Amino acid sequence: MKKASIISVGNELLNGHTVDTNSAYLSGELFSIGIPVEGVYTVGDDISSILRAMNLSAGDTDVVLMTGGLGPTDDDITRQGFAKFLGRELQFHEELFEKIEDFFVRRDLKMPEKNRIQAYIPAGAKAISNDVGTAPGIMAGLKDKLFFAMPGVPSEMKKMFRESVLPELERFGRGQAVAVKKLKCFGAGESTIAEMIGDIMMRGRNPLINCTVSYGVITLHIIAEAEDKGKALKMAEDDERRLRGILGELIYGMGEQSLAEVVGQELARQHKTIATAESCTGGLLAKLITDIPGSSKYFLQGLVTYSNAAKIKELEVSAELIETYGAVSEEVASAMAGGVRKTAGTDFAIGITGIAGPDGGSEEKPVGLAYISVDCGLGCETRRFIFSGDREFIRFRTAQTALNMVRLRLKT
Amino acid sequence: MKKASIISVGNELLNGHTVDTNSAYLSGELFSIGIPVEGVYTVGDDISSILRAMNLSAGDTDVVLMTGGLGPTDDDITRQGFAKFLGRELQFHEELFEKIEDFFVRRDLKMPEKNRIQAYIPAGAKAISNDVGTAPGIMAGLKDKLFFAMPGVPSEMKKMFRESVLPELERFGRGQAVAVKKLKCFGAGESTIAEMIGDIMMRGRNPLINCTVSYGVITLHIIAEAEDKGKALKMAEDDERRLRGILGELIYGMGEQSLAEVVGQELARQHKTIATAESCTGGLLAKLITDIPGSSKYFLQGLVTYSNAAKIKELEVSAELIETYGAVSEEVASAMAGGVRKTAGTDFAIGITGIAGPDGGSEEKPVGLAYISVDCGLGCETRRFIFSGDREFIRFRTAQTALNMVRLRLKT
Repeated sequence: MKKASIISVGNELLNGHTVDTNSAYLSGELFSIGIPVEGVYTVGDDISSILRAMNLSAGDTDVVLMTGGLGPTDDDITRQGFAKFLGRELQFHEELFEKIEDFFVRRDLKMPEKNRIQAYIPAGAKAISNDVGTAPGIMAGLKDKLFFAMPGVPSEMKKMFRESVLPELERFGRGQAVAVKKLKCFGAGESTIAEMIGDIMMRGRNPLINCTVSYGVITLHIIAEAEDKGKALKMAEDDERRLRGILGELIYGMGEQSLAEVVGQELARQHKTIATAESCTGGLLAKLITDIPGSSKYFLQGLVTYSNAAKIKELEVSAELIETYGAVSEEVASAMAGGVRKTAGTDFAIGITGIAGPDGGSEEKPVGLAYISVDCGLGCETRRFIFSGDREFIRFRTAQTALNMVRLRLKT
Repeated sequence: MKKASIISVGNELLNGHTVDTNSAYLSGELFSIGIPVEGVYTVGDDISSILRAMNLSAGDTDVVLMTGGLGPTDDDITRQGFAKFLGRELQFHEELFEKIEDFFVRRDLKMPEKNRIQAYIPAGAKAISNDVGTAPGIMAGLKDKLFFAMPGVPSEMKKMFRESVLPELERFGRGQAVAVKKLKCFGAGESTIAEMIGDIMMRGRNPLINCTVSYGVITLHIIAEAEDKGKALKMAEDDERRLRGILGELIYGMGEQSLAEVVGQELARQHKTIATAESCTGGLLAKLITDIPGSSKYFLQGLVTYSNAAKIKELEVSAELIETYGAVSEEVASAMAGGVRKTAGTDFAIGITGIAGPDGGSEEKPVGLAYISVDCGLGCETRRFIFSGDREFIRFRTAQTALNMVRLRLKT
């Protein structure tokens, strides 16, 4: 079985300024194609450290993935380290230079002289194109092993990995069979889900069921191993069916799907439209909905009515209602949903009011309290929640819960 | 100068299920007390990998901090690896066992037999108490070097580090002084800023100037070393003054400040209010503004007018204007800002329209095109940008640029 190492390069990773999320992303991707990562080396922008990590990695594993240190400034020296490791010189490539220059020209900018260095790659290595930034990646083979250098900026790295590196690795690692399925759940805690599933989550079982949690989204990873891909896939599918039987509508999607994506797909499929009226989430719900390309088909309008005046003027929530029940109340949430549904003329509308903290809570209305209302024209469903965590967590959990309420409503 | 290595232990770190945030935390803490981290090794739950990482770390540095692998289950073998590295046996400690038992008793639970292993530590090593979990930490000295093992659960690790490990390290590293300042910049690219700064960014210089980039925010880290803290601080301050002289208003803040925070503080200080009208950013700008606690003081209202109908109805943008210039145009951005400023009755208003992609672009109006308009009552400033990257990046860059325009306007 082929194995991989990761080398994360950058002083910012060694002084606490940046959390290395790249290696977790790459580990997961490599794991899912059956090339497990044996180790990660995090080193500074320093040639000898890069060289040593490359030598150690090459000694242990078949694939070495580096991220970071391909920028235009003097401290970016991954390409020099790469060349030294291969025992080759850096070569200037006119066509890479033109691409970099073009990157600036298209933005009506003059290319800084510093960026010229990015047109150099080690002799005999292959440049990997970068559509979203200036730094091309580098790929080279040495003694039946594959070496890659990618930018450290996560968005650039991910795009380059998916489009150019992953296909190379799939070819390279062929012969092993691992099938991975991810089931995304929302609406119950990790321990509740673990109890529902029971023995299937046992360690050492094949398929292995792993569970990860992020902001209330529980992801169940089904990892099946077998002699061939078909058999592994069948094992994973059998487990998927079993888990779906147990968890039912707690499962909202698969793979990398977000709640906003699933809700959006269903709205589009049913030719329905939606609008939002937010107070404590302050635009986050609209942001999550519009994260999805093509959301303009179903998302018509969002209102962030942070002040009471805006709630009254924009949503026709009556001042008396706010006076009687308070801005954070079931009544106001429901009036907000109704108000925005009317003004936007949509099929569905969401109203959210709550206390995101850290201040503004009271005994009766604590930080984390949220009222979420979904109006579908045939009536309003309003629910009360108390979420715990910091401001960011409470806001995100509130917005996600609102999307989940719409998801369940769209099913009926 | 004393140096440190970090070893993060755990299979979950090598299959993409967990992002290692511990090493960034520890790196930052060590950096701030003048014991820089030279490298981080991430290894699986495997004795030989742990041993090799300990040997490499001990070869390079004076302090080795391990996290993870101290749990009660069979795959937790950091203590065995630690003992093997020291060439000593694991010894059972009655008083540790009682503490672990007591942890369960206090929770009305019976201690599982598996937890007994946590009462073993290498002969001659010192146990570090853990108030929030069952696993004690381990500390040992060998040949003038210090080795620590801590739990992998971030909350347990941080508490143990702060209370027990940090004081040991401060004693150990005494005599070095490091001062760090972070300058946050926005409005120019990394290479432009590097060219403006020139030689000051040279490697090996003291203070060292490091540069990191995240979504258009450039952070310059000034890292000064000297015999004592006062001198180091003075050196960092001198460099800060110099950089401020060169970069001027490109510097928007210090430390961990976000653009939204700086803009919010200035709005509050000047007793001004703001409202937003967003198209392509879909609520993200309002979300960033309301990420800041207390933003209700100055943020009154946000409109996400995704559809043309919403732009016309909510913002009184004329249908003719949209017809003539298109929804993505300077004219519409400016009408959106003016419209929301009027309806919300604020001092400032931002209007954004653009094409976030991945679809919807044309030769004349490509993906990444954005018009941002800031209306302050005395006239509207509208600027045109072309951002590159994926949808997420374009949206974030657009929202950040809008905040930066308000920041500069608030200065005048």
